[in-house]
Amino acid sequence: MNLLLLEQTDFIAADRVVLADRRFTHMQEIHRVAVGDTLRVGQINGLMGQARVVRLEGHEAELQVSLDQQPPVKLPLTLILAVPRPKMLRRLFQTIATLGVPRLILLNSYKVEKSFWQTPFLTPEAIRENLILGLEQARDTVLPEIIIEKRFKPFVEDRLPAIAADTLGLVGHPGDYPACPRAVQQPVTLAIGPEGGWIPYEVDLLAKAGLQPVQLGARILRVETAVTALLSRIF
Amino acid sequence: MNLLLLEQTDFIAADRVVLADRRFTHMQEIHRVAVGDTLRVGQINGLMGQARVVRLEGHEAELQVSLDQQPPVKLPLTLILAVPRPKMLRRLFQTIATLGVPRLILLNSYKVEKSFWQTPFLTPEAIRENLILGLEQARDTVLPEIIIEKRFKPFVEDRLPAIAADTLGLVGHPGDYPACPRAVQQPVTLAIGPEGGWIPYEVDLLAKAGLQPVQLGARILRVETAVTALLSRIF
Repeated sequence: MNLLLLEQTDFIAADRVVLADRRFTHMQEIHRVAVGDTLRVGQINGLMGQARVVRLEGHEAELQVSLDQQPPVKLPLTLILAVPRPKMLRRLFQTIATLGVPRLILLNSYKVEKSFWQTPFLTPEAIRENLILGLEQARDTVLPEIIIEKRFKPFVEDRLPAIAADTLGLVGHPGDYPACPRAVQQPVTLAIGPEGGWIPYEVDLLAKAGLQPVQLGARILRVETAVTALLSRIF
Repeated sequence: MNLLLLEQTDFIAADRVVLADRRFTHMQEIHRVAVGDTLRVGQINGLMGQARVVRLEGHEAELQVSLDQQPPVKLPLTLILAVPRPKMLRRLFQTIATLGVPRLILLNSYKVEKSFWQTPFLTPEAIRENLILGLEQARDTVLPEIIIEKRFKPFVEDRLPAIAADTLGLVGHPGDYPACPRAVQQPVTLAIGPEGGWIPYEVDLLAKAGLQPVQLGARILRVETAVTALLSRIF
């Protein structure tokens, strides 16, 4: 946790918060704070700054908060991912929040196992919890928008063309395609397939919607590694 | 597992192997193979190719193997990492094998907790197991070399200058440094610090050994994410 994120409900006055949950435990066990110490804090979807510990008791801490810094800018990106297996999904929410992805669309695909949609990691509470862990890692406050699209064809045919318009549209896909571009200076719409890849029908439909296939070399990467590698190369 | 990796000891003849361990289970449960099916295989530190299932019994499978393809090339890189926490270390061995790192040096640093060196994930068996998982993911056969350096100063002063000679030497380090270069066309020596970063004394010593600090932006990345992001940008 490189930034302590504050919720609206933590505030007992305009510049005071009281914390009694995992953040309090973290302050005690990892930061080993004492009264008078300062910590980096941020308000969820708001500014970042400093907090000074003004009261510390057995079960809670009171902090005086001063918020005056903008959070870091996000990437100019809409990321579209075929839903990965649950274990991967949890870390992926953290990773995309850390990397500064502002909008993630989770999409169905032929090779996505139906059971993947049943995971508790797709509940709004679990999504938010993992996004916050990723923001705390990166020192950012702004929650990415997560959109769930359970039907491939209606999304790609009806809604994707408007999303991809005026952006560089890319599909990460192994094969005989151009190499993924570097240091792109415009907004990007990027789609990354499931384990085993998109099927040709899906690649065709994505291309019709404005997303052109690009490849990253012969090595097959796990989804989380592919996301980081593609974003690091593109931006 | 995108490639079934074969050990020398699996061979019962020049072109025949018998498998009875987790690879046999994987073939049955994930690939659901039948006699006559073919699979992608590779020999550890050797060639890749195809194998045909010639016998399938309750507890083992016999495959006829034909190896004729070179594994993918490795990155021209020596990667130096401050030892991360054990949970991270396990995945990191997989990730560096997947990404094609040929040589990893695990180094001590002021902010590495002493207990990190005690993890069972640093035993040769555990290292090999996780490297193999990473190679299977990427479809590569060649095990990276892993070197353990428990003393920072003697390594950086006495051995690092020779390693870094004739390479582009870089230290990933947050701060007011040049941005990490892109698409480098020469061999690289790259050092990545622990959670909390290198201390200034360490950065100075690394610079004297030929490694210059570069940064990746304001966001603080987990070690595994930083490794992937830096390598994807540099190569």
